[in-house]
Amino acid sequence: MPTILGQNQYGKAENRVVRIVRDGDTHHIKDLNVSVALSGDMEEVHYSGSNANVLPTDTTKNTVYAFAKEHGIESAEQFGIHLARHFVTSQDPIHRARIRVEEYAWERIAAPGAGEVKHSFVRKGQETRVSQITFDGSRWEIISGLKDLTVLNSTDSEFWGYAKDKYTTLREAYDRILATDVSARWRYHWTDDTEPMPDWDNSYDRAREHMLHAFAETYSLSLQQTLYQMGSRIIDARDEIDEIRFSLPNNHHFLVDLEPFGLKNDTPDGAVYFAADRPYGLIEATVLRDGAEPRIPLDMTNL
Amino acid sequence: MPTILGQNQYGKAENRVVRIVRDGDTHHIKDLNVSVALSGDMEEVHYSGSNANVLPTDTTKNTVYAFAKEHGIESAEQFGIHLARHFVTSQDPIHRARIRVEEYAWERIAAPGAGEVKHSFVRKGQETRVSQITFDGSRWEIISGLKDLTVLNSTDSEFWGYAKDKYTTLREAYDRILATDVSARWRYHWTDDTEPMPDWDNSYDRAREHMLHAFAETYSLSLQQTLYQMGSRIIDARDEIDEIRFSLPNNHHFLVDLEPFGLKNDTPDGAVYFAADRPYGLIEATVLRDGAEPRIPLDMTNL
Amino acid sequence: MPTILGQNQYGKAENRVVRIVRDGDTHHIKDLNVSVALSGDMEEVHYSGSNANVLPTDTTKNTVYAFAKEHGIESAEQFGIHLARHFVTSQDPIHRARIRVEEYAWERIAAPGAGEVKHSFVRKGQETRVSQITFDGSRWEIISGLKDLTVLNSTDSEFWGYAKDKYTTLREAYDRILATDVSARWRYHWTDDTEPMPDWDNSYDRAREHMLHAFAETYSLSLQQTLYQMGSRIIDARDEIDEIRFSLPNNHHFLVDLEPFGLKNDTPDGAVYFAADRPYGLIEATVLRDGAEPRIPLDMTNL
Amino acid sequence: MPTILGQNQYGKAENRVVRIVRDGDTHHIKDLNVSVALSGDMEEVHYSGSNANVLPTDTTKNTVYAFAKEHGIESAEQFGIHLARHFVTSQDPIHRARIRVEEYAWERIAAPGAGEVKHSFVRKGQETRVSQITFDGSRWEIISGLKDLTVLNSTDSEFWGYAKDKYTTLREAYDRILATDVSARWRYHWTDDTEPMPDWDNSYDRAREHMLHAFAETYSLSLQQTLYQMGSRIIDARDEIDEIRFSLPNNHHFLVDLEPFGLKNDTPDGAVYFAADRPYGLIEATVLRDGAEPRIPLDMTNL
Repeated sequence: MPTILGQNQYGKAENRVVRIVRDGDTHHIKDLNVSVALSGDMEEVHYSGSNANVLPTDTTKNTVYAFAKEHGIESAEQFGIHLARHFVTSQDPIHRARIRVEEYAWERIAAPGAGEVKHSFVRKGQETRVSQITFDGSRWEIISGLKDLTVLNSTDSEFWGYAKDKYTTLREAYDRILATDVSARWRYHWTDDTEPMPDWDNSYDRAREHMLHAFAETYSLSLQQTLYQMGSRIIDARDEIDEIRFSLPNNHHFLVDLEPFGLKNDTPDGAVYFAADRPYGLIEATVLRDGAEPRIPLDMTNL
Repeated sequence: MPTILGQNQYGKAENRVVRIVRDGDTHHIKDLNVSVALSGDMEEVHYSGSNANVLPTDTTKNTVYAFAKEHGIESAEQFGIHLARHFVTSQDPIHRARIRVEEYAWERIAAPGAGEVKHSFVRKGQETRVSQITFDGSRWEIISGLKDLTVLNSTDSEFWGYAKDKYTTLREAYDRILATDVSARWRYHWTDDTEPMPDWDNSYDRAREHMLHAFAETYSLSLQQTLYQMGSRIIDARDEIDEIRFSLPNNHHFLVDLEPFGLKNDTPDGAVYFAADRPYGLIEATVLRDGAEPRIPLDMTNL
Repeated sequence: MPTILGQNQYGKAENRVVRIVRDGDTHHIKDLNVSVALSGDMEEVHYSGSNANVLPTDTTKNTVYAFAKEHGIESAEQFGIHLARHFVTSQDPIHRARIRVEEYAWERIAAPGAGEVKHSFVRKGQETRVSQITFDGSRWEIISGLKDLTVLNSTDSEFWGYAKDKYTTLREAYDRILATDVSARWRYHWTDDTEPMPDWDNSYDRAREHMLHAFAETYSLSLQQTLYQMGSRIIDARDEIDEIRFSLPNNHHFLVDLEPFGLKNDTPDGAVYFAADRPYGLIEATVLRDGAEPRIPLDMTNL
Repeated sequence: MPTILGQNQYGKAENRVVRIVRDGDTHHIKDLNVSVALSGDMEEVHYSGSNANVLPTDTTKNTVYAFAKEHGIESAEQFGIHLARHFVTSQDPIHRARIRVEEYAWERIAAPGAGEVKHSFVRKGQETRVSQITFDGSRWEIISGLKDLTVLNSTDSEFWGYAKDKYTTLREAYDRILATDVSARWRYHWTDDTEPMPDWDNSYDRAREHMLHAFAETYSLSLQQTLYQMGSRIIDARDEIDEIRFSLPNNHHFLVDLEPFGLKNDTPDGAVYFAADRPYGLIEATVLRDGAEPRIPLDMTNL
């Protein structure tokens, strides 16, 4: 047979699960989008269509909802660990499970009337928290992160001294806007069930904070430099994280030429910019703890 | 001639303008998406292609950027007023200008390093503030609002006692999630240059707050009732607003049936829901001050 | 009471219904997205939350699916007429029904194997056909059209002789690309059940064809002129259509300046363009049969 | 130093380039979205912000437009080869270039008027053709494919005989709709400049055709089986292709339960389905020529 089957996986994607916990009158909400991908002894279903080894994707969906009730949702990572362990340990033909989670954050509505309202929420609407939990029956790989966190520095950014060729027309910039939509994925050192897990939520909060601070505090000569500062600050400060990868679009803000209208645009009191859509610079890189093996896939930050 | 020209308008849409104001080391940011639509003596350009009365859309774009420098951006409404007045009063063939603005909110990054960082921002990412400013040379119409403000009550919502026909299978609900993405547009009483303008930003903040509080505090027997509470609270509390229209999708959260797995889902300590995409209920209505004329177009809340 | 209820409507939006008809081995497919909006005696549900007059949106959904089986889907318009008539005539409190339909076109896969395959389809993927059917118990209003039909002329378009002011910097163009995404809505003359209906599908095909031909054949001095040619050709040729409205973004294709690289871009054998996203010119207008009353809402072409 | 730099790349993404070629009155159009990613000696820009090795992303944009004029656009693949070779051979610090291209297809408008119109086009709007061209100075890797090709079989699909656990509630199906949005990437055998290149356009057309035919002709017991048929038919028929990977969402069409309304839905003359959005099954797999090394990244089909 001249053709063979390579890597394959299947499952139910984008199960939207909302879990409400009632602590008396005070409610808590978790809002997730969960995708299941299973691999294993799946040759036959591809070759002949025999589904004998195939747990239906519909069953994986049911499991997501049942586990949200049975185990609760402590964190995206912990929920994914429950699911991945279940699929690999309960179905012989399944050798590997990968759970992807998106989490949407909510905050309480502070309404003065009717006592204090403890069951009303408004979606925070900023970044989306993401996590990928993979289990092969013996070792874990947890890659977490965020996407669509839009940040902007209105000064302390320059770009000059670059290589030039016959197609170079760009003028050097000594004070520009630097803006990007942060997409980041970091890999945890934890792989072994017998070792204590990180505090997933605290780790997320601290990593996010370090990124924002590094972005704000770096006097930037290039977006690459800012990226590296964001990554290395996390590796330095968080022992539980071994690797982080970023995809940072350069959200160009072009100074508008107002000279034809007798206006000076870039003055000490500020300026007017055109926020462009496409094309955009795209800066991607991995930052690693020395000695760690790079494992975050290159395009994962573009999903 | 059997065919004639009806209502028409033209202009440059979606001019993305960012204005930075520098107050010493402290920077301020305004981030808008501005669309211009002009009407007037435009028969010839449609009939023969003569552009003699047509100020190019490119010129309307330039004007947006120049005005951001010349006049600054005090508020979306004030900026639109500057623009609309300019087009109608400076070009004889232009009899009416309509400016639409989307505004994206930013908040400061509180970074501890390097003193306090006063030029670093993260996009708030919640609702989009919108405004439509129309001027016909004598009167103004200002319709402002917001879209994509997602809210959820995890209890205090029922739905029962409804009409039934042969196609009705829905079971009555005595405790359900109520969730929606608020799209609202309110019309200001102000139409006359000689009268004092409202404080646009304060009015926006108060209207938004009233909506959130009314949503949180209403024990809801139907989304229509909640909508009316949201609208009437604004009309009652804000003299400067005469009319408000809402488009509220019913973001269905279906209680998952976990009985087949031996689990009771809806228990005193909470429950698990499936957040559905399509189809969704869609509730739309206008709430008016008694005596006010309805002028907000029906589909405006769907744009 | 200082506040009152204005226009309001409710129903289930975006019911995705696919109907397969089997004619022996030959299958036929209809693929619609149907939205229902009902109005009538709905004060109480807004004021007190009483649902006594409210047929649930869930029931309107069920009706869409049941009618697809009971009546079939002859055309988007005919299907909407069945639905609108049903809601208004079967529920006393409902005085008006508005059905919106999007239709996605499919074409057959011509596969040589296994005889001829008569149940395999590939989505055409070009424009989306749309229709809005409104019934108030006595008269009909049918507005049909399309959106996202992207067209481009690579020559025979100019733009010059326009008005100039101090913000005008645009250079005149004597040979440019003209491109747009056509969004059009046309209103049928038919309003009365006792008169024969148009052939909806044939009318759609002819109107679409006239638009494409008028776009291709018009030597354009402005996008407004092209718009008017597209509209008047339909009004002239199709007696059943009284009014048409267009929203035509000017999809700018800017000639790239290649002089810095020693290249002449605009040569007799062709040129290279940058296809821009935002901002874009936006040209909107209604074309009417003389004597017809304009009824298509201004923003309907932007939905 | 505890942190180090891992894989990194940068460049200008989403350069929208339209190339018109004039062959007398007959025009030809190529419409691409081109993204450039360069790698090499880039440590310093990350560590210190020195841009000495950084050819600006703006220059890579200029190069795309200049090359469209200098070299023309014979095919997406050939255009990417020109660009990748240029960056790697002309800039010492650049050791690897990856060019990604999306191509949008157009067809001619057949207008009867004014002779035959040879410069008017309508966008085909079906699948998007994609290609990724990578060069490291010595070897090439060309991965091409398509996305968003939506197909549907209205019969000849079953699903039964699957594994069951305590969370399984799905009923077996003996005649169902099978529908998916095909995303496929295939890798060419060609890697060496000294060997003759494939005919890229012909290879694309044939691969697309084989996929459609295999989809239509396979009596399917699972989407995995259909996927494998689509892949193996290409590997069997096209010597120039060594590997292909698919991501196939299972676009669920659920038979609507019309029993409560006294209707039998699934009858010999056809049925009515609800086309669901989320969640969806997601089937992904690689099909390889025996002996070929798998190199297409797992997530590439999800971009």
